[in-house]
Amino acid sequence: MDKTSRNDIKRLFEPESIAVIGASQDKSKIGYTVFNNIISGGYKGKVFPISPKGGDIDGHKVFKDIKDIKDSIDCASIVIPAKLVKEAVKSCAAKKVKFVQIITSGFSEIGNTREENEIAKIAKNAGTRIVGPNMFGLYSSAASLNSTFSASKINPGNVAILTQSGALGIAMIGKTAVANIGLSAIISIGNKCDVDEADLLEYLIDSENTKVILIYIEGVKNGERLVETLKTAAENKPVVVIKSGKSKRGAQAAASHTGSLAGSDAIFDAVMKQCGVLRAETLEEAFNWCKFLASSPAPKSYQSVIVTNGGGIGVLATDACEKYGIALYDDQASLKSAYEAVTPSFGSTKNPIDISGGANAEDYTRALSVSAESRDIGSAIGLYCETAVFNSENLSKMIIDTHAKHQEAGKPITYALVGGEQVEGAISLLRNGNIPVFNDVEQAVSCIGAYYKYYKYMEEISRKIDEYDIDLKAINKIIDGAIKDGRTFLLANEGAAVMKAADITIPSSRIAHNINEAVKFAEEIGYPVVMKVVSKDILHKSDVGGVLLDLDNRKEIVDAYEAIMHKCKSYKPNAVIEGIEVAEMVKKGVELIIGARRDPSFGPIVMCGLGGIYVEIMKDISFRALPINRGTALSMLEEIRSYPLLLGARGEEKKDIESVIDTIIKIGSIIKKCGRITDIEINPVVVYNIKSGLKAVDARILINKHKGEPQ
Amino acid sequence: MDKTSRNDIKRLFEPESIAVIGASQDKSKIGYTVFNNIISGGYKGKVFPISPKGGDIDGHKVFKDIKDIKDSIDCASIVIPAKLVKEAVKSCAAKKVKFVQIITSGFSEIGNTREENEIAKIAKNAGTRIVGPNMFGLYSSAASLNSTFSASKINPGNVAILTQSGALGIAMIGKTAVANIGLSAIISIGNKCDVDEADLLEYLIDSENTKVILIYIEGVKNGERLVETLKTAAENKPVVVIKSGKSKRGAQAAASHTGSLAGSDAIFDAVMKQCGVLRAETLEEAFNWCKFLASSPAPKSYQSVIVTNGGGIGVLATDACEKYGIALYDDQASLKSAYEAVTPSFGSTKNPIDISGGANAEDYTRALSVSAESRDIGSAIGLYCETAVFNSENLSKMIIDTHAKHQEAGKPITYALVGGEQVEGAISLLRNGNIPVFNDVEQAVSCIGAYYKYYKYMEEISRKIDEYDIDLKAINKIIDGAIKDGRTFLLANEGAAVMKAADITIPSSRIAHNINEAVKFAEEIGYPVVMKVVSKDILHKSDVGGVLLDLDNRKEIVDAYEAIMHKCKSYKPNAVIEGIEVAEMVKKGVELIIGARRDPSFGPIVMCGLGGIYVEIMKDISFRALPINRGTALSMLEEIRSYPLLLGARGEEKKDIESVIDTIIKIGSIIKKCGRITDIEINPVVVYNIKSGLKAVDARILINKHKGEPQ
Repeated sequence: MDKTSRNDIKRLFEPESIAVIGASQDKSKIGYTVFNNIISGGYKGKVFPISPKGGDIDGHKVFKDIKDIKDSIDCASIVIPAKLVKEAVKSCAAKKVKFVQIITSGFSEIGNTREENEIAKIAKNAGTRIVGPNMFGLYSSAASLNSTFSASKINPGNVAILTQSGALGIAMIGKTAVANIGLSAIISIGNKCDVDEADLLEYLIDSENTKVILIYIEGVKNGERLVETLKTAAENKPVVVIKSGKSKRGAQAAASHTGSLAGSDAIFDAVMKQCGVLRAETLEEAFNWCKFLASSPAPKSYQSVIVTNGGGIGVLATDACEKYGIALYDDQASLKSAYEAVTPSFGSTKNPIDISGGANAEDYTRALSVSAESRDIGSAIGLYCETAVFNSENLSKMIIDTHAKHQEAGKPITYALVGGEQVEGAISLLRNGNIPVFNDVEQAVSCIGAYYKYYKYMEEISRKIDEYDIDLKAINKIIDGAIKDGRTFLLANEGAAVMKAADITIPSSRIAHNINEAVKFAEEIGYPVVMKVVSKDILHKSDVGGVLLDLDNRKEIVDAYEAIMHKCKSYKPNAVIEGIEVAEMVKKGVELIIGARRDPSFGPIVMCGLGGIYVEIMKDISFRALPINRGTALSMLEEIRSYPLLLGARGEEKKDIESVIDTIIKIGSIIKKCGRITDIEINPVVVYNIKSGLKAVDARILINKHKGEPQ
Repeated sequence: MDKTSRNDIKRLFEPESIAVIGASQDKSKIGYTVFNNIISGGYKGKVFPISPKGGDIDGHKVFKDIKDIKDSIDCASIVIPAKLVKEAVKSCAAKKVKFVQIITSGFSEIGNTREENEIAKIAKNAGTRIVGPNMFGLYSSAASLNSTFSASKINPGNVAILTQSGALGIAMIGKTAVANIGLSAIISIGNKCDVDEADLLEYLIDSENTKVILIYIEGVKNGERLVETLKTAAENKPVVVIKSGKSKRGAQAAASHTGSLAGSDAIFDAVMKQCGVLRAETLEEAFNWCKFLASSPAPKSYQSVIVTNGGGIGVLATDACEKYGIALYDDQASLKSAYEAVTPSFGSTKNPIDISGGANAEDYTRALSVSAESRDIGSAIGLYCETAVFNSENLSKMIIDTHAKHQEAGKPITYALVGGEQVEGAISLLRNGNIPVFNDVEQAVSCIGAYYKYYKYMEEISRKIDEYDIDLKAINKIIDGAIKDGRTFLLANEGAAVMKAADITIPSSRIAHNINEAVKFAEEIGYPVVMKVVSKDILHKSDVGGVLLDLDNRKEIVDAYEAIMHKCKSYKPNAVIEGIEVAEMVKKGVELIIGARRDPSFGPIVMCGLGGIYVEIMKDISFRALPINRGTALSMLEEIRSYPLLLGARGEEKKDIESVIDTIIKIGSIIKKCGRITDIEINPVVVYNIKSGLKAVDARILINKHKGEPQ
């Protein structure tokens, strides 16, 4: 993305002037709400209400037509009936308006795609960009601009929200106010006839006001660019996403064989992980994370400590720490010396630190000071079960104090308080004071979990991309041949040739045309070998005796050649037999599946998993969007449940993981560089002991008739 | 459990008299709080404060010693220092007090197990039962008795809480007040030196005030009885459980090989499922479920409908329905005719019903009436994104009305409202009115999910138990022999004999003592066969050439016999060779693992899963506590991810599932009936096509030296 396009999108969020086409004096109309929100929100640029009725709105002169305005217009907001929108966009295009927000609905979302496409075309030709239609406007704290039709006041802050659902977006504005979350921006994406999430992210990446980005998403278009932009965004600030349509009922049945294994939500999930994007399960979780991440510094240590006055919630929090991947600080000697003074003999200085039911505010303050001051502990989780020992005022004061201590030390802390009305009251007050206090253990722990997950990603990413220099010319020649034949798939030998062109080891094989050749080839390949008739006229080769396995010596080769010829000819006397394939008998090893395909949302994707018949049954597969590097390929392997098979389970030797990584990179390079290949699946890839390589046994490749662009 | 013991426990919850040993005039002491809670809670029975100081408390005469009281005492509450407790229990035992609640802590929870055991023994000898020590007292609405030291008032209602954690229990009392959940009883279990969860459940099963039971549990002792009691409880009313110690860090490393595969939390989870107990993830979820289930009638249909004014939250709710196993009503024609009138053209009459952002309170009321009146729809989920169309007063009224309509129709409905302060205010008010309204989609859906899960279980349970009439005498003889040898495991041939005694098919095998016998046995068994030397002196039989596979004819048998004898003798000239085993060569099939063991918490457990090397890697196993029936065995199979292999994946024939079920029942019968067997693991069990049976190839059996009781 060049810098120019970024500057462009800035005009949407920080326009110097805005026209409201359809501004109205009627307070019950959206045309009034939008205009009034702009004015009362304190927008400093020029505002031009436009309506054929003319007159004025609250003292602001109304223009009858946009062409009557002499100033240049950065942004126009359209709030007129759908049937008038096209004409309005034409006049905006003529006026060279930079961005048009079409709030009006009634386009592609109800099937009226033709009109929407026409509008998009008119704008595109004039260089005018469109947000929407069917969006609710936007709020941007940088310009003090609220051009939404929300009835709620929006508080400025540092969380930005992009939402695909307008209704949910308006509701979220209300929710952010209740949760005391300030916004740097909120915008609904609407039908995305032009501007999409990636465009808007470009602005938010550079926006200094924005510390965390929250995205609500239902479906992905143009996912390859989104992936790139999300990666860049997550490198700059935490990105939290909620995606609906996880369930089968919501999700589209994926088209290709490989996709049907796991459904597209698994791919979405994998790609988000790969981009460092935090995926929340619920709206509540997403809001909690955003609020917490916006005020959390980078970690000083990845180890946490739990301080509690009750063993029960201590154990619940420990469970939650495992669920959210939080390591508990575990140096028993240090824990003992640090917490001994504040822990009674029947408490525990093991993490969770149980300072017991008799602990008062002072005991808590002392115990929670340890993590703020410790060199090794990076965060803390404070738990409190209501007791009679201290009142809610002391409780609040203790939390404010210990929170401040951690803030000063640059370490995050969350609290979970369980109790009655007084405790709930304290929670409300503290939350309004932006202290991460919850009434449930899970939420307090999940915030710390999201925080560590993000920063671990930041540490782990390496932008290096690994690709392999495949023989593209050879592959294209194979595809040309298949397309000439009218096929959209490659034959087994063509698949094998593609593997060779990418330097992927396949079982040795030659086609013999007489007994002498068969013996010669078998000896070159090395015993045992397999022999198989080569004939387009014989389909089920095994059934008619056209395949013989495990042939061990010259005599068996001679017998086998004669037996196969005899059986095939007596099965089908006029069959054209091109020869007999003599192939290496593949030794046993760990069977994987490695594949790649073009995902409709995210473009080229690689996958790997447990192979053989288990791939369909166990669905033990992981995905990544390209490009990737060797580290990413390794993490794909580490993610599958059967990874221990590669490490050498049950006393077996470790397998050749480096060769598997090579093969994933090579397969990725094929699909990335060869635009006409849509689907590759090697199943099985038989992996041998360390340094002994692998064999790609059966490569199934689908191709596209149209000459695609290499990517 | 006979009826007498149930009557007994009733005296704990509904005593006619209660003594408070350690009652105090000092308001800062627990001895005052407990006494005061009993008096001010309106307890109607007789109360006897006891303290050596004498005098009176708030006008009630204090007795210096329990023996000074002439009345009989049903219950005593002990709130004196730990070192004085033993003497107090002695005086209670002498007075024949029926139940003693020991609130005092400082016993086994801090390692002082000796004192606790002594106290338990004193009480047991006198027929006095003890709750605790280290418990917080109890509340029982049936007796208007609050003998806890909680500072919060407890509202009577129909949820009963048993908690293993005292601190969390006290905090939960506060939480129930905030959530407006009325209690029929709350009791903390403490150290369980005598009375345990199962005893307390006996009372709650019969308690008419109790509609739902909530249990917070950390660890299980005497799980077999708990399982039986939980089953009975769940047959009578919904039971919700929260268990902490799910994580590895919390959970104990399971002792036996099979247990270490999955960890004991997997077993706990499986057993809860089997008992029909609903396991909640968080406290919040548990409270939501309890409140909802306490007021929900039995389902009229298992299909639900979602009504929303925003597509986005509609999809989020659809995702959640799949997560919680809720079927959405899907008869498109009926949906269309029912909802057409209330849905604008750009909305949707497909479930979720999207009545769109323009919907007002009247539209909602009409749309939500459909499910109340429908014959086919059994429940509804109402979703609302804040809009300007109707204010919160109308919103609340609409929800009260439609909720009442569903109540009248005997159908549950939950609501999720997303929005700002007004919406949050409406939620608080409605929740106080006991209407299940949430600010998050997940929670609204999860309540309906728990509700259906419970009633589905109720429909599915069948109390019939399946057992198999194994030859116990034969098995005991085998075990006697092994114990005489000083072994705690059975040899392969002994394991095979146990299989035979339970009528489980194993590969045919005979031991030949000469070549003629070998040929004869091979021909009886049928080719191909395996031959293996039988000698205690040769350990690694394969390594020295003592095993030969795939022998196909008389000549190969003769050669093999001679080869094995030759090789073994040259390897170890003085080895005693008992003979050569001739065994059936097991054909390929689907490999399962089937096993059983005595779980330290739950007693005899059966397990099955994917066998071969995959059992350790994939952990694809399911468990059940015994007894089970054939239906339970089938559900075990259905639960494993690799179940499709048995159904005939990839065009293969269906496998002999009936034989697998037989084998699970038989293995269960062995471990249930033979108290000295601690562990059985058959791996692999090779399963063939339907009606073709299976072969139990390798049975590893561990035994206990001590003669256990059959169960």
